[in-house]
Amino acid sequence: MTSHDNTLSILALGGINEIGKNMYVVQYGNDLVIIDCGAKFADYHILGVDLIIPDVFYLQEHREKIKALIVTHGHEDHIGGIPYFLKKMNIPIYATRFTLGLIELKLKEHKILRESTLHEINADTHLTFGEMDVSFFKVSHSIPDCLGIVFHTPEGKVIHTGDFKFDLTPVNEQYSDIHKMAKIGEEGVLALISESTNAERPGLTPSEQLVGGHLEEAFLKAQGKGKIFVSTFASNVNRVQQVVDACLKTNRKLALLGRSMVNVVHVARERGYLDVPDWMMVDARDIHQLPSERIAILCTGSQGEPLAALARLSTGSNRDVKIHPGDTVILAASPIPGNEKDVSRIVDNLFQLGAHVIYGSSSITGMHVSGHGYQEDLKLMLTLIKPKYFIPIHGEYRMLHQHRLLAESVGVEKGNTFIINNGDIVDIQNGVARQTRKTVAGDTYVDGYGIGEVGQVVLRDRKQLSEDGMLVIVITISKLDGSLISEPDTISRGFVYAKDAEDLINNINMLVKESIDRFKEANPFAMKQAVKKAVGQYVFTHTKRKPMLLPLVIEI
Amino acid sequence: MTSHDNTLSILALGGINEIGKNMYVVQYGNDLVIIDCGAKFADYHILGVDLIIPDVFYLQEHREKIKALIVTHGHEDHIGGIPYFLKKMNIPIYATRFTLGLIELKLKEHKILRESTLHEINADTHLTFGEMDVSFFKVSHSIPDCLGIVFHTPEGKVIHTGDFKFDLTPVNEQYSDIHKMAKIGEEGVLALISESTNAERPGLTPSEQLVGGHLEEAFLKAQGKGKIFVSTFASNVNRVQQVVDACLKTNRKLALLGRSMVNVVHVARERGYLDVPDWMMVDARDIHQLPSERIAILCTGSQGEPLAALARLSTGSNRDVKIHPGDTVILAASPIPGNEKDVSRIVDNLFQLGAHVIYGSSSITGMHVSGHGYQEDLKLMLTLIKPKYFIPIHGEYRMLHQHRLLAESVGVEKGNTFIINNGDIVDIQNGVARQTRKTVAGDTYVDGYGIGEVGQVVLRDRKQLSEDGMLVIVITISKLDGSLISEPDTISRGFVYAKDAEDLINNINMLVKESIDRFKEANPFAMKQAVKKAVGQYVFTHTKRKPMLLPLVIEI
Repeated sequence: MTSHDNTLSILALGGINEIGKNMYVVQYGNDLVIIDCGAKFADYHILGVDLIIPDVFYLQEHREKIKALIVTHGHEDHIGGIPYFLKKMNIPIYATRFTLGLIELKLKEHKILRESTLHEINADTHLTFGEMDVSFFKVSHSIPDCLGIVFHTPEGKVIHTGDFKFDLTPVNEQYSDIHKMAKIGEEGVLALISESTNAERPGLTPSEQLVGGHLEEAFLKAQGKGKIFVSTFASNVNRVQQVVDACLKTNRKLALLGRSMVNVVHVARERGYLDVPDWMMVDARDIHQLPSERIAILCTGSQGEPLAALARLSTGSNRDVKIHPGDTVILAASPIPGNEKDVSRIVDNLFQLGAHVIYGSSSITGMHVSGHGYQEDLKLMLTLIKPKYFIPIHGEYRMLHQHRLLAESVGVEKGNTFIINNGDIVDIQNGVARQTRKTVAGDTYVDGYGIGEVGQVVLRDRKQLSEDGMLVIVITISKLDGSLISEPDTISRGFVYAKDAEDLINNINMLVKESIDRFKEANPFAMKQAVKKAVGQYVFTHTKRKPMLLPLVIEI
Repeated sequence: MTSHDNTLSILALGGINEIGKNMYVVQYGNDLVIIDCGAKFADYHILGVDLIIPDVFYLQEHREKIKALIVTHGHEDHIGGIPYFLKKMNIPIYATRFTLGLIELKLKEHKILRESTLHEINADTHLTFGEMDVSFFKVSHSIPDCLGIVFHTPEGKVIHTGDFKFDLTPVNEQYSDIHKMAKIGEEGVLALISESTNAERPGLTPSEQLVGGHLEEAFLKAQGKGKIFVSTFASNVNRVQQVVDACLKTNRKLALLGRSMVNVVHVARERGYLDVPDWMMVDARDIHQLPSERIAILCTGSQGEPLAALARLSTGSNRDVKIHPGDTVILAASPIPGNEKDVSRIVDNLFQLGAHVIYGSSSITGMHVSGHGYQEDLKLMLTLIKPKYFIPIHGEYRMLHQHRLLAESVGVEKGNTFIINNGDIVDIQNGVARQTRKTVAGDTYVDGYGIGEVGQVVLRDRKQLSEDGMLVIVITISKLDGSLISEPDTISRGFVYAKDAEDLINNINMLVKESIDRFKEANPFAMKQAVKKAVGQYVFTHTKRKPMLLPLVIEI
């Protein structure tokens, strides 16, 4: 890979062919700016891994060129990787006031807030990084204070949309600056990098205000009828605001349950993104002092997370707050694909507690709208910006594919859309874009305090252990002639319940003895292989299982 | 539990609060009839378990009363447990011709067909088991030859619906016998046991014929344009018929991919449930000899199963058949909750191969309709049968709850609906129903050849092993004074990559030595506990992980 000094390069280190761990790079010559640094949760088949963050090999290689990490908004898939990344490279961070609030929470938790460099920006900020100028525009999304980014480079303008929808009647003034976008488009744009989450969904996203109307209706219906629980994403401050408004109108006090709900509401109130009268807030431990029809509770866990507030409420395991017949529970969020079953289990439990549960498709309940633009939103962005080149990001392959079709439908020339993978580099020089180079990009696993050291070998072992358990076979032999000094001993874990399988274990020990007798002339390695082979075959024939076999040869 | 000689008892041994492993019992005095014997797949958190079948403790206790196993239809959640059950108790089976065909496939595979007793029945069959008479009525579903059951007992009539929808324009004459149901209802029904799968969905299920129209349209659009792949449930023979019809109209030959597709199509053709001209069938290995626009392929894997035909096609790993740009792939099935992500990954791969993919919500594509009645279907059944008592089954709790509301909306008296759990027994005596007794019911895990011996201990071990792996610590001590004979040796699997963690392992060995020195006077058990405690604390402090610790003390 040679250096391309007057080349504009665009790449993704995460966010392509996945929903999560967004990280993009815009680079002109020796000036490199990073956009976002997200994390994603591990799928269940990545055993024992807590979190996945981007592999930043490319950034380590270009360390001296990095000028800034600009963060478009405060969702986990855009900020979750920051603490781990900063521990590797202490890059200055630029983000809006609310986004910074959420980043600071993370840095505090990781005890690196003091040594981090944080710059507050807003939609009117202008930044200069070498030959690159950077400006911003407001976008609507499901969290306050979101930005799109304009990179002014000698090659031309590159726009990164951040996550967005068009909401003409947003809550708390979180509007999209359509006029600014139109002006940018008028001036001519070289390349648009745009999110694709909802590129498969026809139409225009509904306004967040619709949820407010349905919340108010549910609160009115529940008057005099017990507590109301609303579960939603803590970061959806505008939806939280609408719950607050419904409480005001129906005379309920509000308690918060769940660590992230408490933290985010605190940040949002402190920084002026959420308007809650002080008298309305009540501590969850004190709500038993109030009549239940005077209480509303905002809680985390709308995705069915087993340790979050809603799951604990649904099994009656919250110490301070119980759900009783007559209470209303509103799930004001749609399950993210993969979470449906966990959410359903909670709904089942809530029904069993006798609650009135408002759940299911948001098109029926009206209790959720997406923060990601549907097809007409995406077409509007493409129409406003009028880019020459188009790079759809933030989506799985089929979404990027659909987004390309949308771009072509509003005039982007065929052949000018680049569907990239993480690591693919789009180079633009003299107005011509090409995707030929690629760099390393992928998943870095975080497991406990370890970052990046859980690899394929460890995961393969965990998988085998998880499916069929293991057998440790202890073989004590004489150093002199390789003969057994004591009976072989087989210990099983996760294989069969030992008491039910005495015969099996006895037969394994007999087999081991036979193998040792035949191989006592051999070295311990050959002996282990022989034991593994004999025991493996026997176990599979009799149980159809393949536990991990760990023969230990102890020479005395 | 005393015997209730003139009591009518109804219970579920599976199918309640779950979708899967249906098994119900209707018993009058000393005559007991079983309805269905299903299996379900294990959730990913039940590690290494292949299949879950009902716990049949109750049936073992009442072995001498069991007269028959009646099977309503041939879906896995109604027949999947049969081979395992028959190996325990060789009960005579009653089912329709097509259902028997699918059961026979299973019994052959388990090599117990010869000793099994199978009776073919149809909607006109009358059976007598002691004081109980049994008759049947036809219902529509997403597999041919489905029955509802009428139990005529001295207490009154009990109806079991099987799985059903109302389809007034079904494919291949698979209609619901509404007149017979109306007649049964007119005569007076004591209790209705009805499936609840779609009790949450408003409206009436669309007719299977709608899918035929959309399939034909897609085949017409793809004329001259490459191969067409249709992925659907093999057992949905009526949908297979519609694919055959579309092939006829557009002059394509048809190949089958996937073992269950080949097997089920064979049974369906042989027994007269599927009409395919012989000249249309082509072996998948021979399709390269035909022009691609003359080929359609029916394949398994519509649920994203990683080893099924569609998944293999999507990664190019089928030896005989490849997907090329210009080919069309139709997913003619909706993902079952929990399978969405696996299906999406396949769609992504198909797009990357350049295929035109018809996927996503069936309300948009029209390529799938449910076989389970929506709310209006369920209300129609309740209206036709007019039961005094109602027991909703075949569903998770929230579905049973919604089904109760539907029953009340069409006239079932409040208090006359019994929402039961697996194992709860509803007893009816002198026209009065009560649910007070309960029996053992639950999940029996099948893992390899082992049935029921993977229990909570084994699963707990597998979980720990899957999350953080294990450390085997070999300690060789002198029998005389408990002192170490050789250095302790720590072997890790699934914990950290050993080469990255030499220091950690060395430190652990040092700690072990210290513990042994301090505990050498103690017995091996106390020594092991001391090692576990010291190493466990050290490892958690330094890695935040909790691997399984297995100290092995070898006394020489």
